[in-house]
Amino acid sequence: MFLNREISAMLNVAIVGASGYTGLELIRLLDRHPGVVISCVTSEQSAGKRISDIFPTLRGRCDLVLEPLNPSAIAARADLIFTALPHQAAMKVVPDFLAAGKKVVDLSADYRLHDPAVYGAWYEPHLNPELLPEAVFGLPELRRETIRKARLVANPGCYPTSVILGLKPLLENALIDITAIIADSKSGTSGAGRSAKVDSLYCEVNDSFKAYGVGGAHRHTPEIEQELSELAGQPVTITFTPHLVPMDRGILSTIYATPNRPVTTEELVSLYADTYKDEPFVRPLPKGQFPSTAFVRGSNFCDIGITLDSRTNRIVVVSAIDNLVKGASGQAIQNMNLICGFPETSGLEGLAIFP
Amino acid sequence: MFLNREISAMLNVAIVGASGYTGLELIRLLDRHPGVVISCVTSEQSAGKRISDIFPTLRGRCDLVLEPLNPSAIAARADLIFTALPHQAAMKVVPDFLAAGKKVVDLSADYRLHDPAVYGAWYEPHLNPELLPEAVFGLPELRRETIRKARLVANPGCYPTSVILGLKPLLENALIDITAIIADSKSGTSGAGRSAKVDSLYCEVNDSFKAYGVGGAHRHTPEIEQELSELAGQPVTITFTPHLVPMDRGILSTIYATPNRPVTTEELVSLYADTYKDEPFVRPLPKGQFPSTAFVRGSNFCDIGITLDSRTNRIVVVSAIDNLVKGASGQAIQNMNLICGFPETSGLEGLAIFP
Amino acid sequence: MFLNREISAMLNVAIVGASGYTGLELIRLLDRHPGVVISCVTSEQSAGKRISDIFPTLRGRCDLVLEPLNPSAIAARADLIFTALPHQAAMKVVPDFLAAGKKVVDLSADYRLHDPAVYGAWYEPHLNPELLPEAVFGLPELRRETIRKARLVANPGCYPTSVILGLKPLLENALIDITAIIADSKSGTSGAGRSAKVDSLYCEVNDSFKAYGVGGAHRHTPEIEQELSELAGQPVTITFTPHLVPMDRGILSTIYATPNRPVTTEELVSLYADTYKDEPFVRPLPKGQFPSTAFVRGSNFCDIGITLDSRTNRIVVVSAIDNLVKGASGQAIQNMNLICGFPETSGLEGLAIFP
Amino acid sequence: MFLNREISAMLNVAIVGASGYTGLELIRLLDRHPGVVISCVTSEQSAGKRISDIFPTLRGRCDLVLEPLNPSAIAARADLIFTALPHQAAMKVVPDFLAAGKKVVDLSADYRLHDPAVYGAWYEPHLNPELLPEAVFGLPELRRETIRKARLVANPGCYPTSVILGLKPLLENALIDITAIIADSKSGTSGAGRSAKVDSLYCEVNDSFKAYGVGGAHRHTPEIEQELSELAGQPVTITFTPHLVPMDRGILSTIYATPNRPVTTEELVSLYADTYKDEPFVRPLPKGQFPSTAFVRGSNFCDIGITLDSRTNRIVVVSAIDNLVKGASGQAIQNMNLICGFPETSGLEGLAIFP
Repeated sequence: MFLNREISAMLNVAIVGASGYTGLELIRLLDRHPGVVISCVTSEQSAGKRISDIFPTLRGRCDLVLEPLNPSAIAARADLIFTALPHQAAMKVVPDFLAAGKKVVDLSADYRLHDPAVYGAWYEPHLNPELLPEAVFGLPELRRETIRKARLVANPGCYPTSVILGLKPLLENALIDITAIIADSKSGTSGAGRSAKVDSLYCEVNDSFKAYGVGGAHRHTPEIEQELSELAGQPVTITFTPHLVPMDRGILSTIYATPNRPVTTEELVSLYADTYKDEPFVRPLPKGQFPSTAFVRGSNFCDIGITLDSRTNRIVVVSAIDNLVKGASGQAIQNMNLICGFPETSGLEGLAIFP
Repeated sequence: MFLNREISAMLNVAIVGASGYTGLELIRLLDRHPGVVISCVTSEQSAGKRISDIFPTLRGRCDLVLEPLNPSAIAARADLIFTALPHQAAMKVVPDFLAAGKKVVDLSADYRLHDPAVYGAWYEPHLNPELLPEAVFGLPELRRETIRKARLVANPGCYPTSVILGLKPLLENALIDITAIIADSKSGTSGAGRSAKVDSLYCEVNDSFKAYGVGGAHRHTPEIEQELSELAGQPVTITFTPHLVPMDRGILSTIYATPNRPVTTEELVSLYADTYKDEPFVRPLPKGQFPSTAFVRGSNFCDIGITLDSRTNRIVVVSAIDNLVKGASGQAIQNMNLICGFPETSGLEGLAIFP
Repeated sequence: MFLNREISAMLNVAIVGASGYTGLELIRLLDRHPGVVISCVTSEQSAGKRISDIFPTLRGRCDLVLEPLNPSAIAARADLIFTALPHQAAMKVVPDFLAAGKKVVDLSADYRLHDPAVYGAWYEPHLNPELLPEAVFGLPELRRETIRKARLVANPGCYPTSVILGLKPLLENALIDITAIIADSKSGTSGAGRSAKVDSLYCEVNDSFKAYGVGGAHRHTPEIEQELSELAGQPVTITFTPHLVPMDRGILSTIYATPNRPVTTEELVSLYADTYKDEPFVRPLPKGQFPSTAFVRGSNFCDIGITLDSRTNRIVVVSAIDNLVKGASGQAIQNMNLICGFPETSGLEGLAIFP
Repeated sequence: MFLNREISAMLNVAIVGASGYTGLELIRLLDRHPGVVISCVTSEQSAGKRISDIFPTLRGRCDLVLEPLNPSAIAARADLIFTALPHQAAMKVVPDFLAAGKKVVDLSADYRLHDPAVYGAWYEPHLNPELLPEAVFGLPELRRETIRKARLVANPGCYPTSVILGLKPLLENALIDITAIIADSKSGTSGAGRSAKVDSLYCEVNDSFKAYGVGGAHRHTPEIEQELSELAGQPVTITFTPHLVPMDRGILSTIYATPNRPVTTEELVSLYADTYKDEPFVRPLPKGQFPSTAFVRGSNFCDIGITLDSRTNRIVVVSAIDNLVKGASGQAIQNMNLICGFPETSGLEGLAIFP
């Protein structure tokens, strides 16, 4: 706990936008990190309240008062800043933190896309496109060493994390037809955030299942394609359909691909085992086993199963993460660990909670 | 209600296997049917108990005593029999009912496949393959007139209903590449039935999402392919992945297909509207709208949305049904209505219950 | 369905505030009523949209356009008006409907309390206290004949319905100490309505259980006490604690009372069976059986179990209703049936939906 | 993690009955304990399988093979044994472990009741009543020092933990009428365990709420009364009603008591704050705040709110725990920490997971 640590040797971090679910999850995970102190939490809407009044889970353990978002005041008290703001809001403050010499792990979408035109097409015009070349898309399994040296890490979206990790071995080995990839993804409701919307009400979501953003409309699409293209070494487009599951946490992506040469399930399972054998947070599963979101709930793991449907000669990959952990706050801490020289797993060792 | 009806003019039906969820759903729906009396309910496990002790929803409204499965005793008191038994169990009694001159709507998988070899490959050897040529796959939207004349209707599986209705307009108009169809389906937990299994426990299912039968292993696959092939006029195989959703009822199928000529979303929406314009229970949705299982819960509707993902030139169809109604008991009653000359919608007019 | 009815002989009803859950439930139930046509639906927020765009369950079955709340325009086209508005809003329009000679079933709290001072103490000052003496608290099991003659029925709250029906036999027979009644009630989330509030978000409610209004703060308290006092013939106060259950529908009240003379469980069970033997919607349970909200879901039933805890000489009553049906819209239709001379059960015959 | 620890200095513990939910929760929590190694896990049903095949959450982190229950083999490899068996099964092996000189924390009901006659009346005849005087009812907030010296700790039931902690300040200060206590408790479904029963199926529990053991029939009643009596210094009986909530984890008890002298809410809040001010795992809440199970989910906290309902002069206490943590495995580890001289909070520092 905070009080038992030697404060002087600790990294001070700020959480900007702490009153949402990813903000809370950062606090929950950092509370177990031996080298970090949370020095500052902000919230525009709840400034002046204790964070533990917003989230009573924190009572007696993190009773910091939420502050308004004053970049210079925050930069003065933090070595690294997590920005857990909506897109468009993050890019208004990130430059200030960088100018003050701070490291930033941004959980919004604002720095994930390299091409400002693509950002503009899917979101709105970018306010500081000059930062995009420098920002590192923070998926450690793809570019761990680059992240270590980064000043600004763009933390990947939840859907992209599940899809990219699911396809990495196939693409970097050029095993599939890159024009025929389909990702059918399903997310828990915390992905919609903590804002008051009728669509997110309990009675609208419970005992219900639906697709949304059908037909390539979801904003995670360009992010997925950017990274898949880099893995493939050529432009990849995919059909991506997100769905809403009546559960709090978890993303499961069922990914379909067509092999471009004869393969067997055994070969595929072996390829995944080999690719991820040294990864602390990716668990490729044995033949015939497939993941459940329940078994990664609350943890930073990504579980992946793979098979060949030999009747139709189609590869099916199933990957599962906790959208708030490996899909957001856990991965952000993994990135912080890389940037700041902590062991990569610090604060992230917790097992999944089941049931 | 039962007591207000003129009993003499009513159709007597038996429900064989009434202590499961589809059995109960038959009772719930038939209770509102103006032309039917339930004369007999059976259950091996619960014989001797009142059905309302098993399902207290029925208290005071259907207090029949469950009987053991004695085919001749049942045939003596029923004009039509719903067999809501596990596969393999149904085929042991259906011939008796037919021999006694009765009509049968079988909710199991036993009579759905025309080819006994296919049945044997996916299930076990068939005990009465001679009945397969006569059995009618009971999807009214495909063969209403044939069903009217049937003695034995094989009520379609829940997943197949959602997938076949979702693809019918595309296949019968030869609009898609029949080698590239993928159906990613998600089902509520009532599809697993009411037997005591660890995998179906509340704590195993709640706040969890998983795939199963991955790689073409689910037994509904041949049934789907048989009907799609008939619609296409040539053999169709598909990649089919079922998933388990933490909800009671509902199936949503997200279906991917590749057009074999240029099409627009408008054209597709119009095609679906036209195909289903006279169907009482299929609701094609306007452009940009997609279904939710919540909006068909408890009803016999199948809602279908369609779009073209123009970025990848792929058609995405989303169809939703209540697995216990249009996916089982409601469709069984629709078939009964056709067989017995009732209005097709009798007993099935109820709106979905939301929330 | 609407189209099959002889319109001329039908009762025209309006639903004011149709875009909430009780409004939708009125439509769902009235759709099955043989003597009613919905002529008008209103919503301030959604005026101009089709009700079936708000609630896609209604697609093709009730596609009325929502209108703004114009009392005279509504009165011109309806014989009876259901006001499903928040408290304070109802009392602004109900007098207009009455002045136009219409019957009103008000689902808000505005006319439930006889004493304007009590209303003022728990809500705000009443705008038309002169109507309170005339308004009838619409619990048919307490005053069926009075309701038949009413112009203005105040439809009871959901919690009060479950508590009052649970205690009626004990109080009217003076069997319990009226100073020691405790009602511990639990409600599904639809009771919180369809407005966008953080507290009602899926992720705030799911996998969670809490009390609220602890210590006698809930506004249903005076309503419960008013009716219990009338049953007892003397002033009754009770300790009432509501709780929020992670489910859509249902209220279960566990009620504790101290007998004022020796009683047995058998005697109590028999008393309840006798009291409610002619009630179409109250099902007293046999000894040893207790209700579940699942078994009344979607139906107008109130199931009640009772026992004596002989170790502590305390009576425990457990009552269950669907808060949207017997606790709101179903009871409103039951009241409409009484007022308008329909069979009391018309439109309300549907069995509970399970699972 | 296990690998980073100096194994020689570690405490070896065995988990007997590891394939249930409390067994898994012990593993999840002990995985974070710096001084413990799990040397042995047993399961009769799953002997020979890896525990991580039963619970894939453990993949790569705890892959021990489940063993059959051989007491001498277990005693040879463990310093302390957690017995997570059904009642009646625990008492068959606990004497063996004690005879081998081991410490035991028993999570069953077998050693909680001091009086063998009471045990016999609520369960079955006790096989080793001679151990009952020695067994310590392991609620650290009641008898921390006694637990430190114990050889056999009877870990309290989940309901009793929530009720006893909720009433302790009132009873030890003789503030309430001990004949008028009512505890209305609500539990998540994991309390029913992981055995395959129809009543625990997802579809039976979801969107449903019910009472059970109504009228003083639940076996936790004598355990509660034993401890309340000890706190009060005289025999206490209570009315206790458990309920089943559609959620995985959590118990919330709403407790009603009658003050025996005038009190105020402020006085009560202050009393609770004072009583529990040094307790690491009890969080008394400020005036006007009440707990939710969501805010203790996955943590060892017990949150308690209290108020006086001044209208009826009744005290209402609301307490919340996670039934698998403070109500079972967390408390067992807290007891282990006391017995073995670890800091009391070791392994239990994790914050609640929300949402």
